[in-house]
Amino acid sequence: MCHHCVIDGVKKSMLSRRDFFKGTALAAGAAAIGAAAAPQPLFAQATMPTKAEDLTHELYDMFPTFFGEQQVFYDQKFNYAEHKFNLFELRVNEHTGTHIDAPLHFSEDGRSVAEIPVGDLVCPLVVVDIRAKAADNADAQVTPDDIKAWTDANGDLPAGACVAMLSGWGQHVATEKFRNVGADGKTMHFPGFHIEAAQMLMESASGVKGMAVDTLSLDFGQSPDFAVHYAWLPSGRWGLECVANLEAMPAAGGTIVVGAPKVRGGTGGPSRVFGMA
Amino acid sequence: MCHHCVIDGVKKSMLSRRDFFKGTALAAGAAAIGAAAAPQPLFAQATMPTKAEDLTHELYDMFPTFFGEQQVFYDQKFNYAEHKFNLFELRVNEHTGTHIDAPLHFSEDGRSVAEIPVGDLVCPLVVVDIRAKAADNADAQVTPDDIKAWTDANGDLPAGACVAMLSGWGQHVATEKFRNVGADGKTMHFPGFHIEAAQMLMESASGVKGMAVDTLSLDFGQSPDFAVHYAWLPSGRWGLECVANLEAMPAAGGTIVVGAPKVRGGTGGPSRVFGMA
Ligand SMILES: [Zn+2]
Ligand SMILES: [Zn+2]
Repeated sequence: MCHHCVIDGVKKSMLSRRDFFKGTALAAGAAAIGAAAAPQPLFAQATMPTKAEDLTHELYDMFPTFFGEQQVFYDQKFNYAEHKFNLFELRVNEHTGTHIDAPLHFSEDGRSVAEIPVGDLVCPLVVVDIRAKAADNADAQVTPDDIKAWTDANGDLPAGACVAMLSGWGQHVATEKFRNVGADGKTMHFPGFHIEAAQMLMESASGVKGMAVDTLSLDFGQSPDFAVHYAWLPSGRWGLECVANLEAMPAAGGTIVVGAPKVRGGTGGPSRVFGMA
Repeated sequence: MCHHCVIDGVKKSMLSRRDFFKGTALAAGAAAIGAAAAPQPLFAQATMPTKAEDLTHELYDMFPTFFGEQQVFYDQKFNYAEHKFNLFELRVNEHTGTHIDAPLHFSEDGRSVAEIPVGDLVCPLVVVDIRAKAADNADAQVTPDDIKAWTDANGDLPAGACVAMLSGWGQHVATEKFRNVGADGKTMHFPGFHIEAAQMLMESASGVKGMAVDTLSLDFGQSPDFAVHYAWLPSGRWGLECVANLEAMPAAGGTIVVGAPKVRGGTGGPSRVFGMA
């Protein structure tokens, strides 16, 4: 390693974690050391995005919920006929609809939703497609083998990614199958991340920032212990639940933009989520 | 015009309005007719964005409001000490904090916030800087001359833009000056769009999609009649109020991504707004 490279290495090690990830994202496409001072693309893909997919389900009063109870309530304060404008006050449980889980949701003093750095809300999107096995088994989980199948097909995880489970559950959102309560009348059956896959992603040198699922929970429906929530969120990472339309995104090369609410002290909240590719 | 061009012209005229705008956005950078079948960049800028600015103020219970009353209420349903997770229910007036006004807000049957096409939420951002005159006059408005000054400096409005007023008011958000109530104890004094500027933008062949202000209202504070709201929103366009951090964006060449809530029937709502450049 030449003298110049050593100095450059020191400079790099002084970069913040986030800048470092941006830097490594660039490495494949440019001479990273030579380009260290140049602005680095925010999006992982090689070319300017040409489409924005809406990865958000429409939210409404009876949107299905984890707890099974109504979590959105409308109160129309002004109406056009009487007041010449329309306005609602909404009462909403933070964890309803397509929404983000902030670290604070499952930790004592983790980051609130407002404290997630804005740069962490724009990430390369990795789509792990487990539709085939989930169609046969509602209790299917994303395992380390599924992650490995993705990297075998697409190469290393991109730096600072959001890793998303595409189970096909998004299309069940308006039906009983979304919660899929079993014969015991309470246990739900829908796919989620296996704790070992979560641990594998947390240990990845690529610095995974978030995970996303097209079901009601990061943990699969029958989870007795929220193992993934308790491992993932306290580590400072975020989760997205009830993501829509993931099947419209490429397995690799897309970017997710998470329009999370910036509510002080919030533990998460309904989010507008874009998939750009 | 050759035969091929005529056919191409017919094809173009059959494109939806939104696709047409995307097409014209490309015209400056590529041979539009030759490239008609190629995917067209979603972002207006010439190169991949390298930064995401957060154009969103943090929302909290006492965030200043147009009506002057509290519009955000927290109810902590679960807390970590007792339940091993945290969760709030929030009661929020749709028009609080950095938020979007949907056409339905000021019309009888305009589009709800959930009905705004996702492609309309990703737009070239035009920043009209009136900080100098607003510093001298809290009742300053964006006039047709201000729009003309922008086009003189930057060329035609980009297709399908969001035109934003940068008055400098964003920095007053935590102070009395944000509402700036006058000597009469009720009339507010802060900048906004002049109705003639709104009309000019509505008539522009560039197809302006939205407007944004760094104050509490599209109309200036002392407006007696919400003239801009009543012209702009029923036309199918959207507005953004209380946008933050516009001074970090270039006058031209940036892109705004509006993370509007996708609430069925909603008239608007707190939004996570990104500025990419
Ligand atoms: Zn949640
Ligand atoms: Zn409003």
